[in-house]
Amino acid sequence: MFDNVPITRIYKDSNAKSKSINDKVVAEHALTINLDKKELVTLLCSPEKLEYLALGFLFSEGLIKGKEDLKEIVLDENQGVVEIAIAEHANIAKGGEPKRLIGSSGGRGISPPFLDHYKVKSEIIITPGEIFNLMEEFIHRSEIFEATGGVHSAALCNRQHILVFSEDIGRHNAIDKVFGECLLKALPTDDHIMITSGRVSSEIVNKVVKRNIPILISKSAPTNRGVKLAEDLDITLIGFVRGERMNLYTHTRRIAYNKP
Amino acid sequence: MFDNVPITRIYKDSNAKSKSINDKVVAEHALTINLDKKELVTLLCSPEKLEYLALGFLFSEGLIKGKEDLKEIVLDENQGVVEIAIAEHANIAKGGEPKRLIGSSGGRGISPPFLDHYKVKSEIIITPGEIFNLMEEFIHRSEIFEATGGVHSAALCNRQHILVFSEDIGRHNAIDKVFGECLLKALPTDDHIMITSGRVSSEIVNKVVKRNIPILISKSAPTNRGVKLAEDLDITLIGFVRGERMNLYTHTRRIAYNKP
Repeated sequence: MFDNVPITRIYKDSNAKSKSINDKVVAEHALTINLDKKELVTLLCSPEKLEYLALGFLFSEGLIKGKEDLKEIVLDENQGVVEIAIAEHANIAKGGEPKRLIGSSGGRGISPPFLDHYKVKSEIIITPGEIFNLMEEFIHRSEIFEATGGVHSAALCNRQHILVFSEDIGRHNAIDKVFGECLLKALPTDDHIMITSGRVSSEIVNKVVKRNIPILISKSAPTNRGVKLAEDLDITLIGFVRGERMNLYTHTRRIAYNKP
Repeated sequence: MFDNVPITRIYKDSNAKSKSINDKVVAEHALTINLDKKELVTLLCSPEKLEYLALGFLFSEGLIKGKEDLKEIVLDENQGVVEIAIAEHANIAKGGEPKRLIGSSGGRGISPPFLDHYKVKSEIIITPGEIFNLMEEFIHRSEIFEATGGVHSAALCNRQHILVFSEDIGRHNAIDKVFGECLLKALPTDDHIMITSGRVSSEIVNKVVKRNIPILISKSAPTNRGVKLAEDLDITLIGFVRGERMNLYTHTRRIAYNKP
């Protein structure tokens, strides 16, 4: 996850002190996904859980629907290539060159963003106390992020605990790693909760709806489109869960709180 | 830049207080760039300085070299479309479908990342005091970021002041807006300084080298590849300029500090 690099640290005080030290920087890795021996995409990512990332990416892009669509996955870590073979029955979206969409941050380049919506179906209810507890566990697990300021985290949770946790330099990748792990281990996501350290743009909401996840919690801010889309897709969106407060943006019926 | 949305704010204390208020969320806009009437890409971005963004994007992708390559630019803000016509003499990179590269965060989807390098040429020297001052001005200008936690900033500076400043939900977009403005106004970037609020991944270093910018300053962390690339391209990379300290990662000869 990290490299050590020699740096010079300079302090502001009037003597302009400096010192030479070694410091951690977060690792950036390039992973090329070959789908049925054809190069699909290269992702810049953190060099962990690369199979999960590749599968989660394919899922998020709508290229596989589940584990049953997968014939083989072979990772060559040294080459930075993952070869994925798809089962014959799998319906891979074909056609012309896909539209290029570039996200605001962590943006994805392949699939169009505002299509294929169906609403999330779930009547899970969670309390604010449970949300604060989950965020506390999440931040505890995300200590790397705190240490280097360079890593995003994502977690799939039930009301009590984090079930799957991933980190990546990209907030999209972190979520895709969670999804890839759920896919390979056949873990359900219905009626579950997703926590992300990153901003909730429309792309993130679009990703979460595909796994029918009803509650999306972020340490950070949503965008206006993220809020609008969560509203439309019946996702309960909670942002800025920090310290002593949180903001409920949409579909508050799933939160058991004392009405104002 | 913002929308007001109704939210419910919940506090952690034992009474589980809540209140309904209006809160700002950052706006997310979709801008489609048509190049010579052919759809090139859709960017998710903040809805300001869209012509600059489009031009800076084309520049960063190597599709235009300067203002002289530009015949016409027409923005239709309502439709979220910018039509750009390129001068006949301009050498637009043609060929097959470009490789898809998806950045870690704010990643771009068109051009390959690690090509076309030439080293930055500049022997500008700057003092730590000037860097702290520039960062102070930068943070002052970036108050929106502080307020909503959802916006990145970028600035082109000389040793004394910020010359061009932009904000966007994407850290790449913020830099492209700066470049687009420089392009249209024929502002030089040689011997200048770029400040970014965001993480310095290899993609960001790759962007900055194209404008021959010798000093890259970030409020945040670099990645290992960002550091390596800055080293290779002779860019002075400075990170974590926060409060009372900063980290020099590469080519410290351009910083006039007291050696340890």
